[in-house]
Amino acid sequence: MSQERYITVEQMEEATASLLENGKKVGADSWQQRVKNQTPHCGFGEAGTCCRICSMGPCRITPKAPRGICGCDVHGIVARNYLRFTAGGAATHSDHGREICHTLYQTREGGNYTVKDPEKLKRIATEWGIETEGRDIYDLAHEVAETGLMEYGKPFGTQRFLKRAPEHTQELWEKAEIAPRAIDREVSQSLHMTHMGCSSLPEALIRQSLRAGLSDGWGGSMMGTEFSDVLFGTPKPVDTSANIGVMEKDMVNIIVHGHDPSLSEMIVFYANDPEMIAYAKSMGAKGINIAGVCCTSNEVAMRHGIPMAGNFLSQENVVLTGACEAIVVDVQCIFPALGPLSKCFHTKFITTSPIARMPDSEFIRFSSENAGENAKAIVKMAIENFKNRDQSMVNIPQLKTKATVGYSVEAIKGCLDGVTNSHVDVTGTTKPLVDVVKSGVLRGAVAMVGCNNPKVRPDTAHIELMKKLIKNDIILIVSGCSAQAAAKAGLMDKEAKELCGEGLKRVCELVDIPPVLHMGSCVDISRMMILASDIAKDWGVNISQVPVVGCAPEWMSEKAVSIGNYVVATGIDTFLGVDPYTKGSEEVTALLQGEHGVKDWVEANYTVELDIDKLGDLMIERIEQKRAALGI
Amino acid sequence: MSQERYITVEQMEEATASLLENGKKVGADSWQQRVKNQTPHCGFGEAGTCCRICSMGPCRITPKAPRGICGCDVHGIVARNYLRFTAGGAATHSDHGREICHTLYQTREGGNYTVKDPEKLKRIATEWGIETEGRDIYDLAHEVAETGLMEYGKPFGTQRFLKRAPEHTQELWEKAEIAPRAIDREVSQSLHMTHMGCSSLPEALIRQSLRAGLSDGWGGSMMGTEFSDVLFGTPKPVDTSANIGVMEKDMVNIIVHGHDPSLSEMIVFYANDPEMIAYAKSMGAKGINIAGVCCTSNEVAMRHGIPMAGNFLSQENVVLTGACEAIVVDVQCIFPALGPLSKCFHTKFITTSPIARMPDSEFIRFSSENAGENAKAIVKMAIENFKNRDQSMVNIPQLKTKATVGYSVEAIKGCLDGVTNSHVDVTGTTKPLVDVVKSGVLRGAVAMVGCNNPKVRPDTAHIELMKKLIKNDIILIVSGCSAQAAAKAGLMDKEAKELCGEGLKRVCELVDIPPVLHMGSCVDISRMMILASDIAKDWGVNISQVPVVGCAPEWMSEKAVSIGNYVVATGIDTFLGVDPYTKGSEEVTALLQGEHGVKDWVEANYTVELDIDKLGDLMIERIEQKRAALGI
Repeated sequence: MSQERYITVEQMEEATASLLENGKKVGADSWQQRVKNQTPHCGFGEAGTCCRICSMGPCRITPKAPRGICGCDVHGIVARNYLRFTAGGAATHSDHGREICHTLYQTREGGNYTVKDPEKLKRIATEWGIETEGRDIYDLAHEVAETGLMEYGKPFGTQRFLKRAPEHTQELWEKAEIAPRAIDREVSQSLHMTHMGCSSLPEALIRQSLRAGLSDGWGGSMMGTEFSDVLFGTPKPVDTSANIGVMEKDMVNIIVHGHDPSLSEMIVFYANDPEMIAYAKSMGAKGINIAGVCCTSNEVAMRHGIPMAGNFLSQENVVLTGACEAIVVDVQCIFPALGPLSKCFHTKFITTSPIARMPDSEFIRFSSENAGENAKAIVKMAIENFKNRDQSMVNIPQLKTKATVGYSVEAIKGCLDGVTNSHVDVTGTTKPLVDVVKSGVLRGAVAMVGCNNPKVRPDTAHIELMKKLIKNDIILIVSGCSAQAAAKAGLMDKEAKELCGEGLKRVCELVDIPPVLHMGSCVDISRMMILASDIAKDWGVNISQVPVVGCAPEWMSEKAVSIGNYVVATGIDTFLGVDPYTKGSEEVTALLQGEHGVKDWVEANYTVELDIDKLGDLMIERIEQKRAALGI
Repeated sequence: MSQERYITVEQMEEATASLLENGKKVGADSWQQRVKNQTPHCGFGEAGTCCRICSMGPCRITPKAPRGICGCDVHGIVARNYLRFTAGGAATHSDHGREICHTLYQTREGGNYTVKDPEKLKRIATEWGIETEGRDIYDLAHEVAETGLMEYGKPFGTQRFLKRAPEHTQELWEKAEIAPRAIDREVSQSLHMTHMGCSSLPEALIRQSLRAGLSDGWGGSMMGTEFSDVLFGTPKPVDTSANIGVMEKDMVNIIVHGHDPSLSEMIVFYANDPEMIAYAKSMGAKGINIAGVCCTSNEVAMRHGIPMAGNFLSQENVVLTGACEAIVVDVQCIFPALGPLSKCFHTKFITTSPIARMPDSEFIRFSSENAGENAKAIVKMAIENFKNRDQSMVNIPQLKTKATVGYSVEAIKGCLDGVTNSHVDVTGTTKPLVDVVKSGVLRGAVAMVGCNNPKVRPDTAHIELMKKLIKNDIILIVSGCSAQAAAKAGLMDKEAKELCGEGLKRVCELVDIPPVLHMGSCVDISRMMILASDIAKDWGVNISQVPVVGCAPEWMSEKAVSIGNYVVATGIDTFLGVDPYTKGSEEVTALLQGEHGVKDWVEANYTVELDIDKLGDLMIERIEQKRAALGI
């Protein structure tokens, strides 16, 4: 096995340095520079001890000023900030899910959007008690979409998808009073509780944080995932490539970036249109190359094998190559910096969503009605921009890996069926996986997710932790920017089995999978919740007993905290490499990380450890503890 | 007229000083001390130039660090913070409205809650296209409540109550794309837009701020008001008293504080129960005295004449009298300081809502099912606490005014009918008011609202501005803590006509009203929107042409910014005495306060002026400009 199969963080940093040189020539700013300008950060903000919730302040807690003007103490302030952070994430993820529901509602035979996985649609309809027999598929799609939209605002009852969890988990949620009602209600109530003069009791605020998180993970995000599958197809293993070298020197490069696949699916479609390819050739290009950044990249990689140019902190790099004709964005995690940066090059920075409007961008308003037309116009615009490229500025670092992506729960079960003796055992379950964990061939699993954050050496935590874990026979299921870090490093190449311990290597060979399984975008962490639930049910234990933990070593967004809350609330211990602005309160820290807070309610808690290597050790330790407790 | 009719700010400050002396004896903290501890405030926070939306930061904008790590500039940061502030307020107000909808849904014949104004219920049902003929009133109430609850989460369409506005206003909203959809959706989308890497274009963020505000004022708040009237009766003029002297030395004093009348209505009911009064007497008290603080006070004053002990910054004073047996709170604007403060006295601090949980309080969970039972238990607990009062600590400053409160739109029209010649003119309109404004007897009106804020000498701005305005023949409609400031000063005494200019004095005499009309709590600013709409329709002009402006001279809460946004978006220029954390961005300031931002969209804008006297001059000037433009 050649060493070139893997790309190290050092190689990536070298490539970035050379791209920054490119930027310097044209006066481009960069996140690396802005981090320097913004360091050191405000200590009050980092500790969560600053309150700006009313205009009597801002108030900051110090030994001499132990309470805000309203009388709130440091614990109340930190907990309120934590809940607001969660609410921001839950609202954001779920609003993405809502857009997907609306897109599903707009599907029609021969329309811009159609139903690509009718079987999945019918399964969900049946689960929700909606009649499927003899119905037109679009009629059914509209009823399911409307029912899904009602999950955001129904006056009574809790989320429909909660019933997918093991009964024990559902009971815990009921008992802790954290079973989420309508998604938007949990968001609004979170803001209400944290309004000036409402809640300042940490326990109440942390409970609501779990509830708002659950409304995301088992509500908005889960619908986002499920209906994206219905609309665009449920992912199946597919080969692709990753890292900045996926940009093509002689082609029109269009980067799709953001989260909602409704836009990128259309761009991909028109980029493959022979008319468009011919047009690109007429403009002197060899063709059209679409590549992705962030979760939009995950979405189109998993369904079409579109290459992955980079993750969150690589988004400026694609423009800095000088070879990016257009960077087309939908929503979330898009640097406003792309506006001024694109002006330093020929790159068109195209915003498309009313939710994400940015200065120095061209706004082409995208909606399901005009999707085809607009996508075509965007592809055309990029093609026509090829001639404006300054060839002397083109610098595409030759870093590229192979990756196999697309491991939805359905796909994982499909792989496991391949090692099931269908004459003896039931297929379509996680039992083969349970068996290898029980036997100790696999020690357990880590769900690694989340963003990059300059507070951690970018991608290092993801990549080094993954290497450490697979060497210890722990399989990885990953999503979001963590998934892209893995792909960029070569860890999603099936040959990466050679980096594994003997047990995991054997499993990879038998099941024909890479040791790091790409489960999708950040809304797709809902897939992990379903997988964990199915494993617990197939095993006959509680989720909290399964030797699996969650980890977000480089997280930065509010969504990540919402995710953390629903992962913990689902019974999965969660390990963070960046502090969630809570260290200013011992009480809040104890509730989240101690033995008698969230752990009492949902049988799991948080571990925050900024030393990444130690974070890895702690995860392995926890997995072994869970094994020991099960007597395996 | 004796001078004792009015109470000056100096007298109130003297009383507060004597109460603070009381506090000192028992080691009580106070907001006055906490303000000292928290001064100076963080300049970044005050300017709106600090961003804590993701965990890469916090970032702070300076000349050397002009962009956050993501690349967002100061305008995007300030605008995002402004939208989040608005969303916090809109969610809070509207969630209060939601609780009222749920209470309406729980009404039943002989239940804890019943329909007190069936006519109003039928009017709303008819307006919403719900069949009323021959229906059981509770059946109707439940359908209306459920329809109201759907306004929070319906997947399609805009708010039902928007149709109450003049057509021109509705057209402006449509054109500006700010007609609010489901209330909670506007809140969630506001969080989504402001999430890391979504919107940083100030215009888009400010538009959404107006939209979220409108979802409150013409959605959640309006339902809160309307259904409170259905449940507890539509306010009619009623006499009451105000200021700290309403506490009774020889009685069991129970203070109700917060915003949602569902609790306080029950407390008032049981405090009047002969069994409870007898019990109080058996404990050595002369009876039970209920008094209010904040908007809960407004609610019960307007419907039952319950005295008003104080407003936001007087909430500690009621405990400091040493004569408060219980302070019973529901939601919003409740100082967490009441926890430790109550421990310095015998006072029971009783929290009742899962939305507002506080340390150092006794939590008695209140719901519509157990409302009666719990209210009785609370009243009993207060009575039994009377014996624990330390008489040597009792200090009730003898400040008390008379006030006439309860001017709902219906009540105002009722008063105007009194001066309408019903043989010639239609009754039930605002035409007599329009006529006196047209003739110049009244120059116009100011809607004065909002909180106290230690950044302004408490109550001074409210009281001095009101005095100045009525002297200039400008009538006041007031709500919230502004209303209580007026009442405390004696400006809601009908005799206060003597402080008015000749024109307003004449109107007060003829219509038999005080010059400052109490329209209710902070959700009741929706009443003012209906009044402004009705005036514009009756007059045949646009709302923005009517010589009326809004003013929040001492505001402090997120709700106030949400209110400001819907008042401006309704076409009413709004004057603020406290900066809404936006001065760090010229662009945002120009959008909100300039000639070509919100003004282009909705024909009104903001004026921020910290010199309160100048603020008054600017309002008078604006009113005169509007008159001149109308040629009157």
